[in-house]
Amino acid sequence: MKKEERITTEQEQLQKFRAVEDDVENTAAEMENVHPADGADQLESLSLTEQVQVVTSLEKEDAAEFIAEMERHDRARLMRDLPPEFAADLLEEMSPDDAADVLDDLDDAHQQSLLKRVEDEEALEIETLLTFDSNTAGGVMNTEVTVIDRNMTADQAIQRIRSAAEETEIPYYAYIVDEMDHLVGVLSLRDLMLSPPGQQLREVLGKQHLVYTYFDEDKEDVARKLTHYNFLAVPVVDREMRLLGVVTHDDVIDIIHEEASEDMLGMVGAGQDETTDTPWVQSVRMRLPWLVVNVANSAISAWVVHLFEGTIGEMAILAALMPIVANQAGNSGQQSLAVIIRQLAMESFDRKRAWSAVAREARIGVLNGIIVGLLVMLGVFLLTHNIQLACVMSFALGLDMCIGNVAGASIPVILQELGRDPAQASSIFLTTLTDSAGFFTFLGLATVFLL
Amino acid sequence: MKKEERITTEQEQLQKFRAVEDDVENTAAEMENVHPADGADQLESLSLTEQVQVVTSLEKEDAAEFIAEMERHDRARLMRDLPPEFAADLLEEMSPDDAADVLDDLDDAHQQSLLKRVEDEEALEIETLLTFDSNTAGGVMNTEVTVIDRNMTADQAIQRIRSAAEETEIPYYAYIVDEMDHLVGVLSLRDLMLSPPGQQLREVLGKQHLVYTYFDEDKEDVARKLTHYNFLAVPVVDREMRLLGVVTHDDVIDIIHEEASEDMLGMVGAGQDETTDTPWVQSVRMRLPWLVVNVANSAISAWVVHLFEGTIGEMAILAALMPIVANQAGNSGQQSLAVIIRQLAMESFDRKRAWSAVAREARIGVLNGIIVGLLVMLGVFLLTHNIQLACVMSFALGLDMCIGNVAGASIPVILQELGRDPAQASSIFLTTLTDSAGFFTFLGLATVFLL
Repeated sequence: MKKEERITTEQEQLQKFRAVEDDVENTAAEMENVHPADGADQLESLSLTEQVQVVTSLEKEDAAEFIAEMERHDRARLMRDLPPEFAADLLEEMSPDDAADVLDDLDDAHQQSLLKRVEDEEALEIETLLTFDSNTAGGVMNTEVTVIDRNMTADQAIQRIRSAAEETEIPYYAYIVDEMDHLVGVLSLRDLMLSPPGQQLREVLGKQHLVYTYFDEDKEDVARKLTHYNFLAVPVVDREMRLLGVVTHDDVIDIIHEEASEDMLGMVGAGQDETTDTPWVQSVRMRLPWLVVNVANSAISAWVVHLFEGTIGEMAILAALMPIVANQAGNSGQQSLAVIIRQLAMESFDRKRAWSAVAREARIGVLNGIIVGLLVMLGVFLLTHNIQLACVMSFALGLDMCIGNVAGASIPVILQELGRDPAQASSIFLTTLTDSAGFFTFLGLATVFLL
Repeated sequence: MKKEERITTEQEQLQKFRAVEDDVENTAAEMENVHPADGADQLESLSLTEQVQVVTSLEKEDAAEFIAEMERHDRARLMRDLPPEFAADLLEEMSPDDAADVLDDLDDAHQQSLLKRVEDEEALEIETLLTFDSNTAGGVMNTEVTVIDRNMTADQAIQRIRSAAEETEIPYYAYIVDEMDHLVGVLSLRDLMLSPPGQQLREVLGKQHLVYTYFDEDKEDVARKLTHYNFLAVPVVDREMRLLGVVTHDDVIDIIHEEASEDMLGMVGAGQDETTDTPWVQSVRMRLPWLVVNVANSAISAWVVHLFEGTIGEMAILAALMPIVANQAGNSGQQSLAVIIRQLAMESFDRKRAWSAVAREARIGVLNGIIVGLLVMLGVFLLTHNIQLACVMSFALGLDMCIGNVAGASIPVILQELGRDPAQASSIFLTTLTDSAGFFTFLGLATVFLL
């Protein structure tokens, strides 16, 4: 009986195993003609074991393309689990910048163990790319570029591109160099196609205004440059103007995605580069300074309340109502803060326009303050039947909301005027102001009119 | 004497006027060879009067290019001040989608007055574009595309593109249509260049997986599509698959820029499309609902304090210290909130990964809570010499910071699980929670241990 059972189980397991194998084969077969980005999505939806099985049964060229498109976290996990020889082969199939990106997420020991299995020339190129700071142009650039001698003719150049296109990605631009390999110009395919066939490129170039970036320039500046000119790619050069690579539009989209959400993190004093993959102790280290600043700031508003302890001792309901005043003004001010930070992030700074935006926020604060103030007046009166208390509360609330909006709008503009990051910890400073002002007006008016 | 004075003044004015004229001529001459994006920047740095003078003295083709690149606000102001005939000529020089964008910022009367001065065919195209919702693919698309019949050969297609390129922008892709003008495929220049010259395009296409978007699709979905595939452009079609235009990588960069900062606005309950150019009364209307929600929420924490009015009446210093507890936990929680909202915006949702990120935030909350708690314990003891008060305060603070982090991290994940926008008003709900929990622990412990 027992034996039979075991046999059934073994058979079942075998069947299961075969089903999984079939699944893997099916998945692998299905994935042959999909776009790498979709293939990456499909891989991500599998378990790690399945990922390894599918990837090892794919053509290496396809597998490399899919892995290059996967999300960093999933990709690193998969690379760690693949047989080293196979993983190294995949790196060879990738473009060197993709390979460098993949390796960047692995620890040093693993990096070295894979790199020594990669062909020498390729490994050297990847290692060079790994030395660039990942926040600079060098760290995000692509090294597969079409370089053309300026003494060629337009037709020769097109021929050259046509043959190079079989090997590399689509060349958006042809990069024209002189005899010393210095970058002297950039021509689009369109420029080449429209040039008289026999004309030398040095003549086609004429007096071109060359836009480029140094390898150590901040990647956000590179993104701004490409966006400003609506280019598809910006060439990256060393100090001697030798071409090292290009930063392309898709890299820039990633950079912009990252950058835009940095403001939100900065506003509340989190680390601007923080992600959910940042080691948590490092996050503590980044956030703690601003939390300590926040304690110090809260101490100011606590001191304001302390001034009115006598009043609160006599009328404890004030302690219950005062957080409403502060909280409401803080929220209203944060709305202004967010709108202004967004404006400053999206446009070049224009002093007049910025201050007129502050005036706009003040108007919004007045109207919102009046409406919410009246609402609160009604609520407090219905609950306490104390008309004086209702009036004091609603006046303090309305006033503090105006203060909140003006402060929320001004803080980033002032930070910008001082040459600082307009988002950095702005929410913390705003709350200090709205808390202190709210407690002071509310408790002050209460002391004068209610006791 | 008086007359002489006037003459001098007139001569001075004439000189001044000539100097300005010279300036304008110089500026205009300087601007002939600059990139449109730089020209737009130069224009923006001038006063409105100077802008009008410079623009009217430029070649119309250059002027149109510069204006298309200007910021919306500056551009609308300038267009309103240009002579209508001249402004209409500029619109004719622009690509129809740029012209539609420019007109979109003018009021209806002004739009109509300019459009009736534009050549009929062009005006019709611009008007059609203006009918699309500006938040959809149709609203951002470019209509100048290179359409090619699928019965052409690769070489004929290249010839066609070569001649079209003189008129329009760089064609990133050739869009292949059937006899009924339905989109059947997309080929890059690279595909065409690598095809055997005599091969018909229908054969080159084979079984292509065609990626496209309908004209009424949300522009953010279009942006995600382009980003996902790293395309340079996505074709826009109507329900019958007829090609209407393309959304290009530079449009997508603008969309992403806008979208990413929407989270920051959503978090605090401002309108997600709000800019500093939104009419202020409309901003009031968008923000007010969340401010009212916030009042209702604050009422909850006020009620918590109300429960302990007896305690506060006996020991008013608690009222001074309790905002520190709430404020600190709120700030710490907002840091978690921002990190998680950013993760949800940048990656596709992965339940397991999201909840492990919440666990990470909890760890950060514990450590930050302990450190800040000890600091506050020391501070309160030094100021009040009351060790019990210091202990109660620091324990409540540390605990509330952990609650803040867990809540700040969970709220967007829960909203996401419910299929809602993870950012929407999340900061408001968080503050209610940290306030209530902070007041309750602090005042509750104080009632038990201090009275």
